[in-house]
Amino acid sequence: MIKVGIVGGTGYTGVELLRILAAHPQARLSVITSRKEDGMPVADMFPSLRGHVALAFSAPENAQLDQCDVVFFATPHGVAMAQAKALLDAGVKVIDLAADFRIKDTAVFEQWYGMPHSCPDILAEAVYGLPEVNRDAIRTARVIGLPGCYPTSMQLGFAPLLTQGKPLVNEGALIADCKSGVSGAGRKAEVHTLLAEAADNFKAYGVKGHRHLPETVQGLEAIAGRKIGLTFVPHLVPMIRGIHSTLYASLLPEARNTDFQALYEAHFRDDPFVDVLPAGSHPETRSVRASNMLRIAVHRPGGGDLLVILVVEDNLVKGAAGQGVQCMNLMFGLDETTGLRHVPILP
Amino acid sequence: MIKVGIVGGTGYTGVELLRILAAHPQARLSVITSRKEDGMPVADMFPSLRGHVALAFSAPENAQLDQCDVVFFATPHGVAMAQAKALLDAGVKVIDLAADFRIKDTAVFEQWYGMPHSCPDILAEAVYGLPEVNRDAIRTARVIGLPGCYPTSMQLGFAPLLTQGKPLVNEGALIADCKSGVSGAGRKAEVHTLLAEAADNFKAYGVKGHRHLPETVQGLEAIAGRKIGLTFVPHLVPMIRGIHSTLYASLLPEARNTDFQALYEAHFRDDPFVDVLPAGSHPETRSVRASNMLRIAVHRPGGGDLLVILVVEDNLVKGAAGQGVQCMNLMFGLDETTGLRHVPILP
Amino acid sequence: MIKVGIVGGTGYTGVELLRILAAHPQARLSVITSRKEDGMPVADMFPSLRGHVALAFSAPENAQLDQCDVVFFATPHGVAMAQAKALLDAGVKVIDLAADFRIKDTAVFEQWYGMPHSCPDILAEAVYGLPEVNRDAIRTARVIGLPGCYPTSMQLGFAPLLTQGKPLVNEGALIADCKSGVSGAGRKAEVHTLLAEAADNFKAYGVKGHRHLPETVQGLEAIAGRKIGLTFVPHLVPMIRGIHSTLYASLLPEARNTDFQALYEAHFRDDPFVDVLPAGSHPETRSVRASNMLRIAVHRPGGGDLLVILVVEDNLVKGAAGQGVQCMNLMFGLDETTGLRHVPILP
Amino acid sequence: MIKVGIVGGTGYTGVELLRILAAHPQARLSVITSRKEDGMPVADMFPSLRGHVALAFSAPENAQLDQCDVVFFATPHGVAMAQAKALLDAGVKVIDLAADFRIKDTAVFEQWYGMPHSCPDILAEAVYGLPEVNRDAIRTARVIGLPGCYPTSMQLGFAPLLTQGKPLVNEGALIADCKSGVSGAGRKAEVHTLLAEAADNFKAYGVKGHRHLPETVQGLEAIAGRKIGLTFVPHLVPMIRGIHSTLYASLLPEARNTDFQALYEAHFRDDPFVDVLPAGSHPETRSVRASNMLRIAVHRPGGGDLLVILVVEDNLVKGAAGQGVQCMNLMFGLDETTGLRHVPILP
Repeated sequence: MIKVGIVGGTGYTGVELLRILAAHPQARLSVITSRKEDGMPVADMFPSLRGHVALAFSAPENAQLDQCDVVFFATPHGVAMAQAKALLDAGVKVIDLAADFRIKDTAVFEQWYGMPHSCPDILAEAVYGLPEVNRDAIRTARVIGLPGCYPTSMQLGFAPLLTQGKPLVNEGALIADCKSGVSGAGRKAEVHTLLAEAADNFKAYGVKGHRHLPETVQGLEAIAGRKIGLTFVPHLVPMIRGIHSTLYASLLPEARNTDFQALYEAHFRDDPFVDVLPAGSHPETRSVRASNMLRIAVHRPGGGDLLVILVVEDNLVKGAAGQGVQCMNLMFGLDETTGLRHVPILP
Repeated sequence: MIKVGIVGGTGYTGVELLRILAAHPQARLSVITSRKEDGMPVADMFPSLRGHVALAFSAPENAQLDQCDVVFFATPHGVAMAQAKALLDAGVKVIDLAADFRIKDTAVFEQWYGMPHSCPDILAEAVYGLPEVNRDAIRTARVIGLPGCYPTSMQLGFAPLLTQGKPLVNEGALIADCKSGVSGAGRKAEVHTLLAEAADNFKAYGVKGHRHLPETVQGLEAIAGRKIGLTFVPHLVPMIRGIHSTLYASLLPEARNTDFQALYEAHFRDDPFVDVLPAGSHPETRSVRASNMLRIAVHRPGGGDLLVILVVEDNLVKGAAGQGVQCMNLMFGLDETTGLRHVPILP
Repeated sequence: MIKVGIVGGTGYTGVELLRILAAHPQARLSVITSRKEDGMPVADMFPSLRGHVALAFSAPENAQLDQCDVVFFATPHGVAMAQAKALLDAGVKVIDLAADFRIKDTAVFEQWYGMPHSCPDILAEAVYGLPEVNRDAIRTARVIGLPGCYPTSMQLGFAPLLTQGKPLVNEGALIADCKSGVSGAGRKAEVHTLLAEAADNFKAYGVKGHRHLPETVQGLEAIAGRKIGLTFVPHLVPMIRGIHSTLYASLLPEARNTDFQALYEAHFRDDPFVDVLPAGSHPETRSVRASNMLRIAVHRPGGGDLLVILVVEDNLVKGAAGQGVQCMNLMFGLDETTGLRHVPILP
Repeated sequence: MIKVGIVGGTGYTGVELLRILAAHPQARLSVITSRKEDGMPVADMFPSLRGHVALAFSAPENAQLDQCDVVFFATPHGVAMAQAKALLDAGVKVIDLAADFRIKDTAVFEQWYGMPHSCPDILAEAVYGLPEVNRDAIRTARVIGLPGCYPTSMQLGFAPLLTQGKPLVNEGALIADCKSGVSGAGRKAEVHTLLAEAADNFKAYGVKGHRHLPETVQGLEAIAGRKIGLTFVPHLVPMIRGIHSTLYASLLPEARNTDFQALYEAHFRDDPFVDVLPAGSHPETRSVRASNMLRIAVHRPGGGDLLVILVVEDNLVKGAAGQGVQCMNLMFGLDETTGLRHVPILP
């Protein structure tokens, strides 16, 4: 049994980790920290966990995180990098759901997150936790920087186009029109995500620039091995869970005869959590609700020169907690799907 | 033209007042205060008002509220009672949408609102702004304490039963099972009303006790002229606007032959904003969305001894801002419906 | 392994059965019928099941239901009673999610469902599938009539009050103010449950009379061993899943000193799917979303003579498919919780 | 007073016409037809109209539509073209909210709508009812083909880019990623728009081809006077009203120094129902809810070569009924805004 600690379990990615890990056959929840809720049973805050999680929150100073095999950080940015060194020194693996170990260039990190990076050496060692791209590196990693929710969908959606040796599409002008449920904004008291503000409403936000842009560009360039250019426009959907990314790429003339459906199916053949739908499909976010699956459909409207890739995922699972457990499974030599074969909840 | 001032226009009842008053043919918005947003055009905060409201917020100290004919307080409890005296002395009428002038017994006020009442004399003078009950007193009032959203629906729903001289129902055991959209909780940054918390969810709250209970009991006793007993259970509905109150009253044996449909129709015959639906109807909250109308249906399931009264209103209009304007119309000698004949928005 | 057949798997209770049974360690989905969808893979209709259910729909005439150990009917009323005899004769157990085997009095059945009952003898044998009430009978039953979604919540909510030998409450005047998500109306093309009709809206329906009333009265009388009187008012909530029943019962004077919290806790001590919350709690429907748990809170507002019982369940799980699997577990000698320990999905 | 008839008033565009026209100071609702609902008061079907619309539905054969000044068709495709000739001969103007008079090329119409066009001569005469483009022609038109909801947002969003003499963007590769609330699917009993299907969900649809594509291409080419190429991807949002179109256009090198904010502001300076927001804005659909306003924001992320135009409208108002009334105002010499100055409903 893997002894698991969670730092910051009071947000949505934290409670989702608890949901998944509580039923994971090879993991045992050992510690969960929250300074504010020290001593409170987790199930008092989240009654959905009554009968499943008996643990209480501990103040960080009382939490014996160094006794764990792995610690997840479901915290705001900046927390994991402050504690990672001590844990690694104690032989504990670290999986950060925030951004501390995502962006390799510390100057870029500082620009977008407004804080200096405090442990560039650990950052250099950290592996970007996208198993479909970095599976082998994840197996041996000590530190994982888990991808953001939007970046997961964009990178997996574009990846098959970028890994074919020569370019198939205009890689300098990719477009990602992404739509997210409001749980992506976290469990924070804010006006703009109140039900009375966000329900029966739709809007774009962050068109000028969003933190997931540099992360995604870094990831796509790593996948392609070439420079890419991306326009990313996020939108807020009046739903709880789910991301739908509509991706656009202009075909290069020499790629017009490519069978893109076959290309996508081949690319993800061995990835248990990526499902390429039959040609002509329109994936729905609810088809992956509460599961670690990501579904993709490939379109070429009118047989023209613009590819339209539709990608859905549950932002809290494949976009966060589930992907973290997928990495944990790999890091501890388990089958990648252990504890992650939930049937999506529909309706 | 009535010169209108608004104190605290950044919440939902404030913006609703702005929506209604901006199109009111006899009112002119003159001042709106917000310390925090001093100088900001109102329409920058609420783009829905672009082209309709040209006013900017003023800090209270710069706002010439004493130049207005009437000032609405769309503020937290405690603000109106601090400013009412000065305004009244300047000849300005006051309409408070909060609770400062609702509860006549200052001890009860203090118990439920956690603050002493600072101007019992003005409270004594204040009229409870429920036109269907207090129309004449409102016409001559200087100070109005507007009913809460739930209390409006409960009082109007029970009123015809309580005003027939002798009791028709067991007045000591009334039940109000009420359901409200989340805008009733206000435009405050709080976790429990986030879309990701409140959507696709339903719950009761405040079963132990809710501030609208003493207010409603006071109102019902004033209507009946007798003691009454009420159990009030509020619930939160995943919608933006609307209150649906399901009211239960046990018939007394001597009232079994009453025609309650006729009784309700007669009672509200002259009330332009109360619509008694045909027998057997099920009013929907959307049938009054964004309008000042309240609709009522009377049921007696199985012909038995329990009356079930269904009441719907828009909590922000008849439950707050619209009722405030209705009172203003009466106070200034206008037709009660002036500026309030909006067709509800459906779908 | 239990070989399971499903008749009518295209509705919400059908797909929910598939979700649960696909991951049930002791059941194997063998047949699923649909005349209209003959030959279509189930996962083509419900992409959420891709990778989990490989079965295709069969036309009833091709389906070898008599080879199954148990057959679930997730069909409209009237289908199960037409097929039950042949299945029983072939040694197959039957679990009906519709109403065919719920109401013991065929005249009452005919009055509320508008069709004569075609097999009163099987009806006489059928066991009402509420394990918390009929656990032993279910173990040995050949035919189960599963309770409706509302009746499950009402019966379990009132049960502890009715089983104490002498009456504690006015059993002739029980009130159940119930609220359901729209999945309770089924996956049928109808205008009134369109999102554009039912979202951002709240209404009561069926106040004059609802089919779940006679079923619940029958159940409560069986529990109490006495006549009871019930007023049942259902409401439609703009959410997908979930029922919240707010139950009212007037205390008899001699019961005023009862500790109802203790009484409820004791009553359900051995029921793995009923969770009595701590005193003062307000259960949320999302706290049981996609799980078989039912949660109850007991209130006595103001210490008065009216008990208020709050009950939440997922109408598709404890109110339908999950309860069916719970019965199946009992009928086949499995632990009652086998395949049913899903952690609820929150948020 | 303009005497107005409505054919087919039982759908969402019909009831929205009723809402607007009931309060229009220069129009009088004279006739509304529905074969199925003959004799039923309109307000019985839509209680929101109680007290506002006293009319009852008439069967078409009893409806004296030829006594009207103008008749709106809020019907399925094919109805208006069957009745237009008789009305025009009687001197009645016709405004069709369906597609009968939108597409000028009858072969294209037949291809996308699956029916031959029965009156090409009237089609030839019909004016496309987009006032911001065709204001003068609308004033003198006898027949109006009103734009679809999506096409309105796409054409007004792209128009300023296409009317500058020489091309500013790659007009052969425009992209419109559009999102609509479900009322756009109409008030039809269908499974896919049930609340339990469409809530808490997001999906694209019609990626292969949607009827609004040829209409929009025709409109854009008319605006530009040149061929254009458009990829249109519609999506379904779990909300009732509202369209948000996110439009993408690649700048041509020679247009890099254009001030697009100024260009858009200048273009719409005299259009009372188009509001160009300040630079950097993110329009929300709720900011136009229940109003005829359309709001636009112009973005150029990272100062690069891709323009991102955000457009919001209420699909039932500016996208249908409101635009119809706007055209009516022009056709009858009224101020364009008569009866259309509703303040949007927020929250």
